[in-house]
Amino acid sequence: MLQNPPAEPGMSLDEIDTPALVVDLDAFEYNLNFMAAQAAAAGVKLRPHAKTHKSPVIALMQMARGAVGQCVQKVAEAEILAWGGVKDILVSNEVVSPRKLARLAALAHIAKISVCVDNATIVPAIEAAARASGANLNVLVEIEVGAERCGIAAGQSVITIAQAIAASPHLTFGGLQAYHGRAQHQRTPQERAQSIAQATEITASVVSDLAAVGLNCPIVGGAGTGTFALEAGSGVFTELQVGSYIFMDADYGRNTPPPPFQNALFVLASVMSAPTPDRAVVDAGLKAVAVDSGLPVVWNRPGVTYSGASDEHGTLSLEPGTPLLALDERVLLIPGHCDPTVDRYDWYVGVRNNRVERVWPVAARGAMG
Amino acid sequence: MLQNPPAEPGMSLDEIDTPALVVDLDAFEYNLNFMAAQAAAAGVKLRPHAKTHKSPVIALMQMARGAVGQCVQKVAEAEILAWGGVKDILVSNEVVSPRKLARLAALAHIAKISVCVDNATIVPAIEAAARASGANLNVLVEIEVGAERCGIAAGQSVITIAQAIAASPHLTFGGLQAYHGRAQHQRTPQERAQSIAQATEITASVVSDLAAVGLNCPIVGGAGTGTFALEAGSGVFTELQVGSYIFMDADYGRNTPPPPFQNALFVLASVMSAPTPDRAVVDAGLKAVAVDSGLPVVWNRPGVTYSGASDEHGTLSLEPGTPLLALDERVLLIPGHCDPTVDRYDWYVGVRNNRVERVWPVAARGAMG
Repeated sequence: MLQNPPAEPGMSLDEIDTPALVVDLDAFEYNLNFMAAQAAAAGVKLRPHAKTHKSPVIALMQMARGAVGQCVQKVAEAEILAWGGVKDILVSNEVVSPRKLARLAALAHIAKISVCVDNATIVPAIEAAARASGANLNVLVEIEVGAERCGIAAGQSVITIAQAIAASPHLTFGGLQAYHGRAQHQRTPQERAQSIAQATEITASVVSDLAAVGLNCPIVGGAGTGTFALEAGSGVFTELQVGSYIFMDADYGRNTPPPPFQNALFVLASVMSAPTPDRAVVDAGLKAVAVDSGLPVVWNRPGVTYSGASDEHGTLSLEPGTPLLALDERVLLIPGHCDPTVDRYDWYVGVRNNRVERVWPVAARGAMG
Repeated sequence: MLQNPPAEPGMSLDEIDTPALVVDLDAFEYNLNFMAAQAAAAGVKLRPHAKTHKSPVIALMQMARGAVGQCVQKVAEAEILAWGGVKDILVSNEVVSPRKLARLAALAHIAKISVCVDNATIVPAIEAAARASGANLNVLVEIEVGAERCGIAAGQSVITIAQAIAASPHLTFGGLQAYHGRAQHQRTPQERAQSIAQATEITASVVSDLAAVGLNCPIVGGAGTGTFALEAGSGVFTELQVGSYIFMDADYGRNTPPPPFQNALFVLASVMSAPTPDRAVVDAGLKAVAVDSGLPVVWNRPGVTYSGASDEHGTLSLEPGTPLLALDERVLLIPGHCDPTVDRYDWYVGVRNNRVERVWPVAARGAMG
């Protein structure tokens, strides 16, 4: 069931119902602008990842600043973006079910739709879906560049798949998907540089092998918030698929150095219990903030640590001498991991100068199918 | 945005869109019946926790089997249960915001509503909300019995709060909330027995202290799926607040012995990539299954382990010699932790004999406020 919005424009932070997903609009716009400028300066295209924000509103803000389109991971996300006016969408992931492929092909009547494949046996199913819908799909081959997830290893198989795509009447060979997920959170710049150098070398060799058989790669896509400057400067990658840069999170903050973005996403929580001088409990636990990449970090409250999460409780530990927290007092938390935290909420609450400026939906919340 | 149901009655498992939240109805009904029988045999009341299921449909199934009411953690959960026909609801948690208290008091016109308090300063706010609404609220004192979360330590403060409740014209003193969350997942029976013995001793002494000042405890509530037999046999606890027993999960399965319930909750996933003989990737990652209490366990697939989760990818590792997984093949996953997994989905898909029998909403999905 869709939840009611927790706030209205004009409210103060203290009037927002909690827990709430709060966006600091100044920091958010700084991040949008900074990444747009970085991509422009490097001469690469920006195709931000909507798996982070799940919002056509944010997608269109990114595109107004020069992004060429959006990435998504799920067909249901592609639907919500396309229905919200996004005209160029890459599913940076494999889609293999005939019913999902039929939905994707249907979308191709209102937007340019691209999808990835890493197995030749699926190409006929994608062609069949496109043909049945009377549409054209753009198909990229996902290659293994170190992520050890989806993606076929460089070699003859990549060429075979690309040729099968190119030979399909309703498909267009769209290029390569070469995302190195594992590199994003490697902590040192040396580790990240080495990972992306390897990914770039593999990708460049595949681009070259494909060129040798007459296949150009319109898109060579990859990069995340942790490594984007490396792919941008590689001379091989043509599109950056960064997602988290718009919000940042505590886990990216642990990279050395952290990515050059401001914390723009917070969970606003309220104190509901303060039973001892060294402990307070807020109303944001496991269901309100993702803990897969560590517990949230308390914003701007020296001496106060978020030390434990249960389903609906967040325990705060207070160092000796820390001013006590009052009942119903508000606390801002920086999520450990922004993407799955956003996916728990129905509404963004956009705040500037401690006032709610706008509220808009996390339209693709729960869009997993 | 509410997602479309992933299935319709009559479909086979292979026709369900994935990822989906699947309930094995035979196992689920076994669990419902077994717990109802256990509580009846022990002579204690059952007030199951709706934070697990978030569904008036399931609440009413529990009450049809003798449960006296439901527990919730959030006002928004109480609203959805009351609007769905549940007539007796305990918010087993502190509510301190005036706006939330006003919503709770409004609900008291259509259901009996109880709420917890652990700080005397809030009692006037609860009374004010009840008075403004022209309603009566039942108020329990939450005491610390080992959970180290909310709850006031046994002693004069408990009596002071209880007397303040009893002296408030629109409030009724409802008894004690004495849940020991930490004991639920202690792995050995000795640890759990010791924890609940201590909790029982503390609780009994508070009951006795209150009786000495003329205050009876209509409810002495506690217990979870890991320890319920101990509270049921304590002679002190009058109501069991068990939640997870209806579904079970992988983490409760690691208790020794595991609670006597069947695995009834699964995430149904599909293989979307199988790039190497030892690896397959399913479409259920961090956003589809909670990982706070460990990764999901693959159901009934010897040699296949869920070894890594990213936002939308679940990596399966195959031992040498394991039959390969086909693209689009279905895999059932037992969540590490049932409650936050349920909270990611809009729909339950109830299955019997490998056919979809019914689909119903996770009506309080995201009800955090």
